[in-house]
Amino acid sequence: MSAQFRRADGARVLADLNALRAFGRYKTGVHRPTFSEAHRQSLSWLAERLPDAQLTPTIDGIGNVLGTSAKPGPKLLAGSHLESQNHAGWLDGPLGVIYALEAARVLNPDPSIPGAVEVASWCDEEGHFGSFLGSRSYVGQVSEADIDAARDRSSPRSMREALTEMGLAGRPRLQAERGRHIGYLEAHIEQGDTLEHSELKIGIVTSIVGIWQYRIVFAGEQNHAGTTRMAVRKDAGLALARFCVAIDARFPAACGPRTVWTTGRITLDPGAPSIIPGRAEMLFQIRDDDPAVIARLEQLLHALADADSASGSCQIAVERIRTGAPAMMDAAFQDTIEAASRDLAGGRSLRMPSGAGHDAQVLATIMPAGMLFVPSIGGVSHHWTENTADADIVTGADVFVETCRRLLADAASIIPQAG
Amino acid sequence: MSAQFRRADGARVLADLNALRAFGRYKTGVHRPTFSEAHRQSLSWLAERLPDAQLTPTIDGIGNVLGTSAKPGPKLLAGSHLESQNHAGWLDGPLGVIYALEAARVLNPDPSIPGAVEVASWCDEEGHFGSFLGSRSYVGQVSEADIDAARDRSSPRSMREALTEMGLAGRPRLQAERGRHIGYLEAHIEQGDTLEHSELKIGIVTSIVGIWQYRIVFAGEQNHAGTTRMAVRKDAGLALARFCVAIDARFPAACGPRTVWTTGRITLDPGAPSIIPGRAEMLFQIRDDDPAVIARLEQLLHALADADSASGSCQIAVERIRTGAPAMMDAAFQDTIEAASRDLAGGRSLRMPSGAGHDAQVLATIMPAGMLFVPSIGGVSHHWTENTADADIVTGADVFVETCRRLLADAASIIPQAG
Repeated sequence: MSAQFRRADGARVLADLNALRAFGRYKTGVHRPTFSEAHRQSLSWLAERLPDAQLTPTIDGIGNVLGTSAKPGPKLLAGSHLESQNHAGWLDGPLGVIYALEAARVLNPDPSIPGAVEVASWCDEEGHFGSFLGSRSYVGQVSEADIDAARDRSSPRSMREALTEMGLAGRPRLQAERGRHIGYLEAHIEQGDTLEHSELKIGIVTSIVGIWQYRIVFAGEQNHAGTTRMAVRKDAGLALARFCVAIDARFPAACGPRTVWTTGRITLDPGAPSIIPGRAEMLFQIRDDDPAVIARLEQLLHALADADSASGSCQIAVERIRTGAPAMMDAAFQDTIEAASRDLAGGRSLRMPSGAGHDAQVLATIMPAGMLFVPSIGGVSHHWTENTADADIVTGADVFVETCRRLLADAASIIPQAG
Repeated sequence: MSAQFRRADGARVLADLNALRAFGRYKTGVHRPTFSEAHRQSLSWLAERLPDAQLTPTIDGIGNVLGTSAKPGPKLLAGSHLESQNHAGWLDGPLGVIYALEAARVLNPDPSIPGAVEVASWCDEEGHFGSFLGSRSYVGQVSEADIDAARDRSSPRSMREALTEMGLAGRPRLQAERGRHIGYLEAHIEQGDTLEHSELKIGIVTSIVGIWQYRIVFAGEQNHAGTTRMAVRKDAGLALARFCVAIDARFPAACGPRTVWTTGRITLDPGAPSIIPGRAEMLFQIRDDDPAVIARLEQLLHALADADSASGSCQIAVERIRTGAPAMMDAAFQDTIEAASRDLAGGRSLRMPSGAGHDAQVLATIMPAGMLFVPSIGGVSHHWTENTADADIVTGADVFVETCRRLLADAASIIPQAG
């Protein structure tokens, strides 16, 4: 069996990741928002590399890059994304794209390997214009009206204007060809510290947690900060602060072992130093892979709001604005990653859910999907200091290439080869 | 004595206030920010009314309107402001200007009254471009460099650009002529509910409280809201919420009887729903007329911050960004308002500090100053629903006119008449 292993060219993987890092470099990370000049350069760079893997590149009308193979046999789709969060890390996205490119370069030209890896870079996974627009377009979930409505979250630019600036306006959008792929494989940095803390090298993703998001609005009474006695105030900002502290006190007894919750944004209205806020709003998010846990926490959230509304000076309204079903990863993909880890990472792997969203959850709606993680130093994510040790990047690449080989071999043994 | 009383023309006062309300009308209030078209119209309107009071109008290079009198005898300066907070009340500012105009109309043409009331509308008391820029310019506290640096808080417009649009660029700025005025009198709505609750009609301001303002910064660690376990988070937003709740718990035992404190603005950085805030900031304000109380509360603020920094996951820094000394109102002015209230408001007056800042605190740095309040319905302020009963407006105008008459008479009895 060991004679069949295929390994990555570790130096080539690291060189490619560093080449991408140059597009929009920011300190040790990158600033490469969707449809920025740096993003455009990274897409062109990838398209130019794909022929090395005997793939024909296409950049489609929503900024997806896809490399397709004419090789007979099963096709495995693999990839991730190339844009970044603002002033964020160099590996979040590119790692998965370069692993896919490397697997394609190693496996596709080899006539002893049945079938091919096809490489994808999904546009805007990071959500500058929407939510997984590129992968959702590929699986048929994005309409032209959705694109008409999409706007850059940090500039007044519309998505249509951005597509025109990128030279992509009017291009057709690629759609998944049903039955073409045996599945989708994506690698990513863990973005947490579980692997590092346990001295493990590979995370085998069991599920991608759902994200439930809430807008919580506190209605008090706007008034003058100098003339309104403390006793008669209806301070919406203070009510919000109390609510955050109450969540922090009550959620731990009701949550699951890996539930996380976050208040990411707070707005006081009108937000002036001399005015008691009459209205306050917070964006609140809960993530878990167990809908029963979410249901319990959502009930608690409403109970806290009702109790505070009844006893306090402000009215609190909880509105769910995003409901995310968790996505389960394919069991055979998990087993294959585990087997490859046993052979090429000393078995130092762990099955774990993904707390972050990934394009794999979108692809999982139309084909079997799997994901593997490599360790993140200090668990840092969405910050320019995000990093992974070079040795861990190379180990991950070896496991990824070998997982692709096994998935193709397994498929070839049961699927009649075409062409 | 009663034969000498002068009363306001109540219908004229109400008509004038309603005329001003038409400039920038918003629901039952006004939206008349500094140097808006509505503001420009209100300044012109006032300048056109001043000759009715035998005053010569000037609109100066910072947007102050001043009516000066050639009448011999003592001069009393009186006024307030005409711009409003955004979408705010119709009386906050205009009441004091129209009272001053009415006193001047009643007293100046009357040859039996010694001296005259001079009317001022101070620009930007509401702080759209700075802090009391108009009155501070008049007393010599604003440099050309200050104006160069001033910017609109709710638009990208500089103060220079705004002055040019208003047709005021290049005009000289009026400066107080030392010794010209026996003092400054200003009327204002109370902006609180003390008078209404006590069924009183006139507030006699004893002092204008100082405002101490703080920027409190919470430094945690920015991270991914899906992948970072609750146990290892350093959530700056949660630390801020806890701090607000701690202030609310600890301040009441350390404050004075009329101290107020307010968190008017909260910012989480980066402020995205899927990112744990690594930094949070709040603008915090304390008002009192006793510096000893402020010193005690400031010490408590630092103690809370130090304790939380030592025990919690975030570092908290407290920075004082504004120090406001309280301004004492002149004792003789207070006595005169009280005497006039006894005769024209049935004695239903109360001595009280002002929790809000007013131009009177600036004028008080160069001349005796006094202020009187009329009731605010429900204590509402800085909101378009702010209001005062018509009868209370008229009572206030009577007391104001009579206070002016007595102040001029008292001054004439001890000052040799000029001219």
